[in-house]
Amino acid sequence: MKRKIDLNADMGEGFGRWSIGDDSALLEHITSANIACGLHAGDPDVMAKTMRAALNKGVNLGAHPGFPDLQGFGRRRMKLPESSLRNMIRYQLGAADAMARAEGGRLRHFKLHGALSNMASEDTALARACYETALDFDPDLVILILPLTAMEEAMQALGGNWAGEIFADRAYNEDATLVDRSQPGAMIHDPVEAAANMVSMVREQAIICASGKRLPCRIDTICVHGDTPESLEIARTVRARLQAEGNEVRPLLPDR
Amino acid sequence: MKRKIDLNADMGEGFGRWSIGDDSALLEHITSANIACGLHAGDPDVMAKTMRAALNKGVNLGAHPGFPDLQGFGRRRMKLPESSLRNMIRYQLGAADAMARAEGGRLRHFKLHGALSNMASEDTALARACYETALDFDPDLVILILPLTAMEEAMQALGGNWAGEIFADRAYNEDATLVDRSQPGAMIHDPVEAAANMVSMVREQAIICASGKRLPCRIDTICVHGDTPESLEIARTVRARLQAEGNEVRPLLPDR
Amino acid sequence: MKRKIDLNADMGEGFGRWSIGDDSALLEHITSANIACGLHAGDPDVMAKTMRAALNKGVNLGAHPGFPDLQGFGRRRMKLPESSLRNMIRYQLGAADAMARAEGGRLRHFKLHGALSNMASEDTALARACYETALDFDPDLVILILPLTAMEEAMQALGGNWAGEIFADRAYNEDATLVDRSQPGAMIHDPVEAAANMVSMVREQAIICASGKRLPCRIDTICVHGDTPESLEIARTVRARLQAEGNEVRPLLPDR
Amino acid sequence: MKRKIDLNADMGEGFGRWSIGDDSALLEHITSANIACGLHAGDPDVMAKTMRAALNKGVNLGAHPGFPDLQGFGRRRMKLPESSLRNMIRYQLGAADAMARAEGGRLRHFKLHGALSNMASEDTALARACYETALDFDPDLVILILPLTAMEEAMQALGGNWAGEIFADRAYNEDATLVDRSQPGAMIHDPVEAAANMVSMVREQAIICASGKRLPCRIDTICVHGDTPESLEIARTVRARLQAEGNEVRPLLPDR
Repeated sequence: MKRKIDLNADMGEGFGRWSIGDDSALLEHITSANIACGLHAGDPDVMAKTMRAALNKGVNLGAHPGFPDLQGFGRRRMKLPESSLRNMIRYQLGAADAMARAEGGRLRHFKLHGALSNMASEDTALARACYETALDFDPDLVILILPLTAMEEAMQALGGNWAGEIFADRAYNEDATLVDRSQPGAMIHDPVEAAANMVSMVREQAIICASGKRLPCRIDTICVHGDTPESLEIARTVRARLQAEGNEVRPLLPDR
Repeated sequence: MKRKIDLNADMGEGFGRWSIGDDSALLEHITSANIACGLHAGDPDVMAKTMRAALNKGVNLGAHPGFPDLQGFGRRRMKLPESSLRNMIRYQLGAADAMARAEGGRLRHFKLHGALSNMASEDTALARACYETALDFDPDLVILILPLTAMEEAMQALGGNWAGEIFADRAYNEDATLVDRSQPGAMIHDPVEAAANMVSMVREQAIICASGKRLPCRIDTICVHGDTPESLEIARTVRARLQAEGNEVRPLLPDR
Repeated sequence: MKRKIDLNADMGEGFGRWSIGDDSALLEHITSANIACGLHAGDPDVMAKTMRAALNKGVNLGAHPGFPDLQGFGRRRMKLPESSLRNMIRYQLGAADAMARAEGGRLRHFKLHGALSNMASEDTALARACYETALDFDPDLVILILPLTAMEEAMQALGGNWAGEIFADRAYNEDATLVDRSQPGAMIHDPVEAAANMVSMVREQAIICASGKRLPCRIDTICVHGDTPESLEIARTVRARLQAEGNEVRPLLPDR
Repeated sequence: MKRKIDLNADMGEGFGRWSIGDDSALLEHITSANIACGLHAGDPDVMAKTMRAALNKGVNLGAHPGFPDLQGFGRRRMKLPESSLRNMIRYQLGAADAMARAEGGRLRHFKLHGALSNMASEDTALARACYETALDFDPDLVILILPLTAMEEAMQALGGNWAGEIFADRAYNEDATLVDRSQPGAMIHDPVEAAANMVSMVREQAIICASGKRLPCRIDTICVHGDTPESLEIARTVRARLQAEGNEVRPLLPDR
């Protein structure tokens, strides 16, 4: 069966003079760009430049908000009151939306970053607060979630458009979490292996764990990276193999 | 002749645990609140709280963007490329707009903060870049400008809605600039004197300099402050006297 | 028995244009000032000004480092690798020491701020990493700790000079922790009551819990505040009563 | 005549997850590392790691303070009161010194960064305030200055140890300033040409302008970069040629 699948990547993760990864090369392979919104990375100039480049390649824009922590790159957990969490998300969404419109685009999706994403995958109330804020801002946004986690629970309760996301370069535990980076085999380095995994998971609509176990779930988008030549090669190979198998690689649409 | 006049004040100038002035008391006197947008002051929580309080009092919301410099409170001049200036303004506008809408309001006006304002009053091209960005974001915004400065030139060229602003507690030089704070008589401390000045300037539609010279110009709004009991008393007195003279104190409207 | 007792307060908690509390009034009552070091509050100008004022009043200077989080005022927990924690502490100590020397003083004590303090009171390894870094920087520093917590354990193991600290305006649980602010009676508002508590605790060298239970421990210093007129009055009254009872109110000394 | 010459480079210019250039490769070629101190770049972890690596290679450590502006990388001019400038410098010196000592090293030199350096090269009073603060912190620091600018004037007046610095990859105007990057020929890309220039300037103890004109001055150190493979090759070639001509490439010493 031929499926529609999206390839997403975090982009615009520089700040001032600093940059991370080769966004320009990555844009050749993906269909959705998750744009950092200024608090953990991505100043207004970086946002504008990244959005323009993405739109020029026909890549969809999404907001990728995180904690206000440049030094920690949004990877340090912060315990915030729910109202502060909502304000923080809303602020970033509004800023990103204005930047996107100025470049002639629109925000089409929403994906939490770093520690905020980790916390949302474990805490349904927190995930719901974030997603409700996003859908309140724009009900047409597609929410990217990690299937079978608290994120999915939150979206099932809320009822908006969502897309299930898997990672091209990571191995999975039997509870649908990622194998910790400190464990052997946690990272998939071989583009061919990564691509084969992705093709299978998309076809079966299931996370295939390192153990071989299948966890049936909805899979709409695959996260790839661009910070190393290896990760760029994984992105390229995953896309090529998905297409070779007859899948249509294209941006997420709310009308899925 | 009975005139319509707006009273504006900078608000939401706290950050995290810090605050400045008694916003709540000031809201009793003003009709337009200029909301700090997060880069020189005003985190998302402060913005939300301030906007909610203003809307509850029927006070209009405006964006008050400044340079990204918390330590300097946006009062240190920064030389930015024009494209960066536009991105920085747009980012703050988008963020503030999202916060305003979530509280059930809308941004109605736009006023530059601190060093950015000082620079725009001297540099038509810079003023124009800022105002064009604001009007591109929302053509219905009323732009607050200092009459007879480069700001007015920029708006004359651009053609959008603007409002001329004077200060209740400051003396003017003969070139329409403010008397430097280091000079004797630069600050007006007496509420009765401040109110008399304002009533005259509004009636004559002219800046009345310390020397007595008149500089005819459009005056639509008066800036008051709330960081001291004295400044609050000036705000109260200015409003009362304006009304006693038959003026209508009300928010700016684009249809002026 | 006549005892020596220190009164300490957090000071220099402003940043840029923002300030908190009346440091100048508080300096009349205390003997040790805990100076914010720039990451959660306290820019270099605030530090210099606060240190100068303290030294002019014969008040000892101490470093009061916190997490790098201006917006959260160092009150949000951050999980850092131990090496990062040490680097963060060392950076703040070095900066504060340079500022103190330029004003003709020296750092004499060390007290953790906010969430970092909360975490250290629960986690001996974390407390030890912080204190070891401080004593490695200057072995003569007196470490302020909360008696009967992980902080005391850490100092018992390390072996340097430390001082046990209690709070003038807070009620205690039976496990030596503070009654949560959300509970009735958590805060002591009455200066006379606060002073009576302090006199008893110092004399008995025991924390006296809200229940009346005694927790014997070493008590060398009392923390007071200056952010409200009430807290200033508590500071004044505590000092006066301690002296009236024959205690000597004076700065901490390593030779205790 | 055989001369002693130092090769210096700005290092530790990362922040959090971000980094710039290949510090590790550059350490093979230089003798003095100018360490960013946390305000424009360089968090405590980056500082510690960079200092450790430099000391392991026998490379001297220096403080490289800049304006508090991460987004602008310290390249945006800020007008500060002189007392604030001194506090800002002192804060960074103290922090860097503590980090250096913890790694078993010491600060040996001092070099201003970015816009602060540009301003100091034009303004003797500003340069003097910065250098006086540095020498007050540690009178043994060697101050790196641009010869024939206001920096040299300031050091002539102050009387401490200083070293004249030239750039390996830049062309000079006849007034000892650098040819603006926007002009053709401003940057030297050819390692062989850069090395030949440096050998001549060191031998003649004169800046040799693009026009061929000689500006006699003291030259003690050459600034190289490591952010591109080309700049690394320039660093390598400059060092090799200086040594081949009989010069001794070694760290700055105050006893010059």
